[in-house]
Amino acid sequence: MSKKIKVAIIGSQFISHIHALSLKRCAEAELIAVASPTPGNAQRFASKHNIPHHFTDYAKLLAMPEVDMIVVGAPNDCHCRITLDAAATGKHVVVEKPLCLNLAEADRMIDSCRRAKVKLMYAEELCFTPKYVRLKQLLDSGALGAPTLLKQSEKHDGPHAAHFWDVNRSGGGVTMDMGCHAIEFFRWMLGRPPIKSVYAQMGTHVHQNKTEGDDNALIIIEFASGVVALAEESWTKIGGMDDRAEVHGAKGVAYADLLRGNAIETYSADGYDYAVEKAGSTKGWSFAIYEEEWNYGFPQEMAHFVDCVQNDKQPLVTGEDGRAVLEVIFAAYESARTGRKVKLPFKTDAKKPSDLWKQIT
Amino acid sequence: MSKKIKVAIIGSQFISHIHALSLKRCAEAELIAVASPTPGNAQRFASKHNIPHHFTDYAKLLAMPEVDMIVVGAPNDCHCRITLDAAATGKHVVVEKPLCLNLAEADRMIDSCRRAKVKLMYAEELCFTPKYVRLKQLLDSGALGAPTLLKQSEKHDGPHAAHFWDVNRSGGGVTMDMGCHAIEFFRWMLGRPPIKSVYAQMGTHVHQNKTEGDDNALIIIEFASGVVALAEESWTKIGGMDDRAEVHGAKGVAYADLLRGNAIETYSADGYDYAVEKAGSTKGWSFAIYEEEWNYGFPQEMAHFVDCVQNDKQPLVTGEDGRAVLEVIFAAYESARTGRKVKLPFKTDAKKPSDLWKQIT
Amino acid sequence: MSKKIKVAIIGSQFISHIHALSLKRCAEAELIAVASPTPGNAQRFASKHNIPHHFTDYAKLLAMPEVDMIVVGAPNDCHCRITLDAAATGKHVVVEKPLCLNLAEADRMIDSCRRAKVKLMYAEELCFTPKYVRLKQLLDSGALGAPTLLKQSEKHDGPHAAHFWDVNRSGGGVTMDMGCHAIEFFRWMLGRPPIKSVYAQMGTHVHQNKTEGDDNALIIIEFASGVVALAEESWTKIGGMDDRAEVHGAKGVAYADLLRGNAIETYSADGYDYAVEKAGSTKGWSFAIYEEEWNYGFPQEMAHFVDCVQNDKQPLVTGEDGRAVLEVIFAAYESARTGRKVKLPFKTDAKKPSDLWKQIT
Amino acid sequence: MSKKIKVAIIGSQFISHIHALSLKRCAEAELIAVASPTPGNAQRFASKHNIPHHFTDYAKLLAMPEVDMIVVGAPNDCHCRITLDAAATGKHVVVEKPLCLNLAEADRMIDSCRRAKVKLMYAEELCFTPKYVRLKQLLDSGALGAPTLLKQSEKHDGPHAAHFWDVNRSGGGVTMDMGCHAIEFFRWMLGRPPIKSVYAQMGTHVHQNKTEGDDNALIIIEFASGVVALAEESWTKIGGMDDRAEVHGAKGVAYADLLRGNAIETYSADGYDYAVEKAGSTKGWSFAIYEEEWNYGFPQEMAHFVDCVQNDKQPLVTGEDGRAVLEVIFAAYESARTGRKVKLPFKTDAKKPSDLWKQIT
Repeated sequence: MSKKIKVAIIGSQFISHIHALSLKRCAEAELIAVASPTPGNAQRFASKHNIPHHFTDYAKLLAMPEVDMIVVGAPNDCHCRITLDAAATGKHVVVEKPLCLNLAEADRMIDSCRRAKVKLMYAEELCFTPKYVRLKQLLDSGALGAPTLLKQSEKHDGPHAAHFWDVNRSGGGVTMDMGCHAIEFFRWMLGRPPIKSVYAQMGTHVHQNKTEGDDNALIIIEFASGVVALAEESWTKIGGMDDRAEVHGAKGVAYADLLRGNAIETYSADGYDYAVEKAGSTKGWSFAIYEEEWNYGFPQEMAHFVDCVQNDKQPLVTGEDGRAVLEVIFAAYESARTGRKVKLPFKTDAKKPSDLWKQIT
Repeated sequence: MSKKIKVAIIGSQFISHIHALSLKRCAEAELIAVASPTPGNAQRFASKHNIPHHFTDYAKLLAMPEVDMIVVGAPNDCHCRITLDAAATGKHVVVEKPLCLNLAEADRMIDSCRRAKVKLMYAEELCFTPKYVRLKQLLDSGALGAPTLLKQSEKHDGPHAAHFWDVNRSGGGVTMDMGCHAIEFFRWMLGRPPIKSVYAQMGTHVHQNKTEGDDNALIIIEFASGVVALAEESWTKIGGMDDRAEVHGAKGVAYADLLRGNAIETYSADGYDYAVEKAGSTKGWSFAIYEEEWNYGFPQEMAHFVDCVQNDKQPLVTGEDGRAVLEVIFAAYESARTGRKVKLPFKTDAKKPSDLWKQIT
Repeated sequence: MSKKIKVAIIGSQFISHIHALSLKRCAEAELIAVASPTPGNAQRFASKHNIPHHFTDYAKLLAMPEVDMIVVGAPNDCHCRITLDAAATGKHVVVEKPLCLNLAEADRMIDSCRRAKVKLMYAEELCFTPKYVRLKQLLDSGALGAPTLLKQSEKHDGPHAAHFWDVNRSGGGVTMDMGCHAIEFFRWMLGRPPIKSVYAQMGTHVHQNKTEGDDNALIIIEFASGVVALAEESWTKIGGMDDRAEVHGAKGVAYADLLRGNAIETYSADGYDYAVEKAGSTKGWSFAIYEEEWNYGFPQEMAHFVDCVQNDKQPLVTGEDGRAVLEVIFAAYESARTGRKVKLPFKTDAKKPSDLWKQIT
Repeated sequence: MSKKIKVAIIGSQFISHIHALSLKRCAEAELIAVASPTPGNAQRFASKHNIPHHFTDYAKLLAMPEVDMIVVGAPNDCHCRITLDAAATGKHVVVEKPLCLNLAEADRMIDSCRRAKVKLMYAEELCFTPKYVRLKQLLDSGALGAPTLLKQSEKHDGPHAAHFWDVNRSGGGVTMDMGCHAIEFFRWMLGRPPIKSVYAQMGTHVHQNKTEGDDNALIIIEFASGVVALAEESWTKIGGMDDRAEVHGAKGVAYADLLRGNAIETYSADGYDYAVEKAGSTKGWSFAIYEEEWNYGFPQEMAHFVDCVQNDKQPLVTGEDGRAVLEVIFAAYESARTGRKVKLPFKTDAKKPSDLWKQIT
């Protein structure tokens, strides 16, 4: 068994909390430090997530020899500098999206990590989103035929932290903040082919008082293969986050709504491997589920039972519960035979529930 | 750190595969043995899931002193005997639903586990189903007011294995096989209050040639509190598995469709804690998401990056990808200013993307 | 051409307004009188709907020889008396649901209309609901195979007028008020076969202070054919009216949500006649539209244009609008060729839009 | 009462059948003639729709002095010539979309109709589509705040008739054929303000063998007011017609799926007039129904009953049906009291159903 990876976080805002929670769920990771320049932030963050070390100066964090990997959730304009410093100390680096402010920065980051032989990882979570992973499998399996149009859209009413509104820190508006998701999504879905051209329509429709950045954008990307992709981004859409994707192909179409719809609504002329338990056919319309076992809770259930054994806890569901269910089932079969409501508690010597229905007494 | 729990599986059919896959995802469990009486089944199962020990006789499995806990996925008529034997050897027992064939068996199982001081755990996965867990939180938080009616339904076109159709082995039809889910779901949702009465309508509508059991059932349960619950079960519903629940309360209603549906479609007169990122209001209709971070893939992403560092693998998303995204973003801002399609590759010395939009050159 | 039918309304509450609006849309009907006992109600009603005659005493309305047909929207306890009086004066009678308070009344109403040779029509609108009419066609066409289970449900937060809450006037609670819809729906869907048995679960869960009637009910009906039907009714469901039906058959299933979903979500093992324009296949899942032309607005469009000609009005959409659209289309093809945003107004001598794309100038 | 308008149809393909069926539903129109050049087509069309006159030469149709109005469903390249000829004979003209092939034709059509003092009406049915009419009302009422982005999309797998594929007859591909719907939809929704610019992305992705026209298109329109509109059109989308619209505003958003979707799914920060019966609140998310009475079938029901009286037909729902319903209701209340299934036929002297529940005998 390999040794656990010791991880440190730089940043203490919204996304850094998600990083911390995610790392806590990772059996192979150990979160040991956090750095954030605003006095008190790192301390509160460390306390909340039970992290042993915290710093206002990230240089001290990088100086810890036991740290293997850092996760950068600081504002966009800090990404380059932190990455260069981390590479210099031999740490692997995860950088939250977007990578940095400009192409020169990007080149320097890539180059210095390569020279330092550390990994530079770009945190585009849509490549790991279970429903989109399933969507890519559908496309890759040929379920939809050759793709013609891809769509991805992210919409909400504006970012969490102040630095997003300041283009000097963020580098741009909604195109920079959320368009970056769509762009990598398209590249990943298609196997990262070359892009031929880009067209964009942008506007600052609602938040003129808050930002010089764009708060609404439509972006059309042509891939060299002829596939067209449409990104639709908004910082002015109220009523909750919206995150959706579509893949249109010559032999099918699939709609994936990340937050509202569970299954991927799919039309496939030729059918595909598997939609859902007992689906019958996958030709025509079907509803492709993703991570079926997880959605039923089987792994969670087993983990709970293991925890009960390991730590001598009371299980959520016990033999007594199983018995109570069985009593109701017996009463149900009794009722089905008699046409009457059956009162509980219900005693019976029947050998099995169905005996009561068929009046085998 | 506690020691890992060593687990063995008894059974090799559909549900046992789910048990194995789920245990593999559990960092604290180690799956070390499987038993199944049909020659070859245990071996194939062990090989598929990479389990070191396999037996046709489960007594040999129980004889392994290192096994802490067993998971019983054998047919219903074996549940009692296996549980008694397991308790006698001091193993903790997880029993797949339904608990056993009759109440006398249930009493013996509970009693023998209690005497042997081993845990008897009843594997009702709906109590762990993430969407239903969120539904229970909504109800418990008062979002829906006092409950009036609960509904739960499971429907497909019939069970996987032959023994389900034989009431001598299964104990009953769809009420036994799937009604048991609904019954425990209702009890769990309401905090396991006493049940006052049960009424059931059953029929064998389609599968008369295959079974003496019921293939369709409606079950009405009255709780002592006055709450009514309706279970609707079918083994004749084609077009794929259906698993849904509803909670109707005096101040709201919530619909949870496990496989197709929305994030929980919720109406709350008074509102509640949290629906989804930037939801605005939770009064009236809202769409309550569950396990939001997991559904975005954040934990999966971090686990992947940790794995790359631990095992020196190439990350799925790299610095080069981040740079490619940034190039498109620059091109997008250039396009937004010029009103033209911008060809890639696109070179620019701009310090940040939004500079190209506002023509700060 | 037959002469128009002269119609009178008895009642002035919620449902009578719907009767009036509906009759106004019926080219063959002429609404000429209304009666309501509360002083002022009939007058206001007549004024609102532009009805020439109004009465507080419905006997005067019945005395009008020119009235051919009356529509009774008065409270349930008046249905029998009014019907008997109407029959005595030779008027055809439409009675709003439910028919009356008891079976003796029903027999008298049927008998007296038969003797008077007037039609007694029972206003169950679900038999005319376009989406349910389409649902019945699906069932009748064999798309779903032999039916096993029918469901219909109506739920809201309680009735409009005070007399519904008084069981002496209404005859019962939500079962009487809304269960009657489901019962006739089931009979109609199945071709009105005999019913074998009825089971009901009722409660007064929320409105105990307002009524002695039931405010929630589950009703299970067994037809002689073995088909089971489940009615689910509520006067306590907040968040807007809910009206849904399901038909489960051995070879398919169809879900019709009257208010929220447009198409009927249908699974058919064998397929059926027509789902929607260019549907491809109707095997497996499909989305059966109803009244497709009306939903597109074609009849409304033609009626508007006819009205413009008949009454010399300005059309909603003119030749100038058609020209403006064409200008945009030319600009679009120009843009597609040049990769640039095209400013309007746009002048071109191109013979047709696509010439600009293919640069045939 | 004005005299009925006498209407003639020119064309005999898909859309002309819709014209005929729509005119048949219009009480004020009388369809008296049809013309189509292909031998036999007009005759078959006339026979199918019961139209007294049919011609291969439309000049003969225009020569009929009694014709008030013509509806042109012929291919796009005939629109101009027919309109000029019709204007010369003093007929009002309805022209199916798109108006004609080029702007010079459009100008001549508008001019000649104006001089002849006949109406030139442009048949954009989306301005009459009930769900979109409701969507416009939502926007106009301020429910969504100031609009930022409008979307409309129409997608199917290609046109019905051969002339659509020939750009010499049609003038263009999917942009011409279906983009024209979106363009007028946007203009109408916004009150027809000036358009500032147009950008389009087009491609022939799938039907290269069939057409020189575009089979997929994205069109971005900027209005002078700053509102952006996005049209998305496809002739390659399989699985059935798709017709959807969205309105995004600073204070809300509304989604209207014409064929599948919800009653308009609406988020409104401030609320609006009416969503659906008993909706409670219209702030936040709500589901705005359209043509509620029609969707319930009330006008259809009344028209049926009037027809029964006028033509002495047997009503679909009779007093006997009302009685049968009542019998079930009595049985239901009896069952609710006794907790037993009640067999039918059920006799009772109870004065009203609820008496049986409360055991007032």
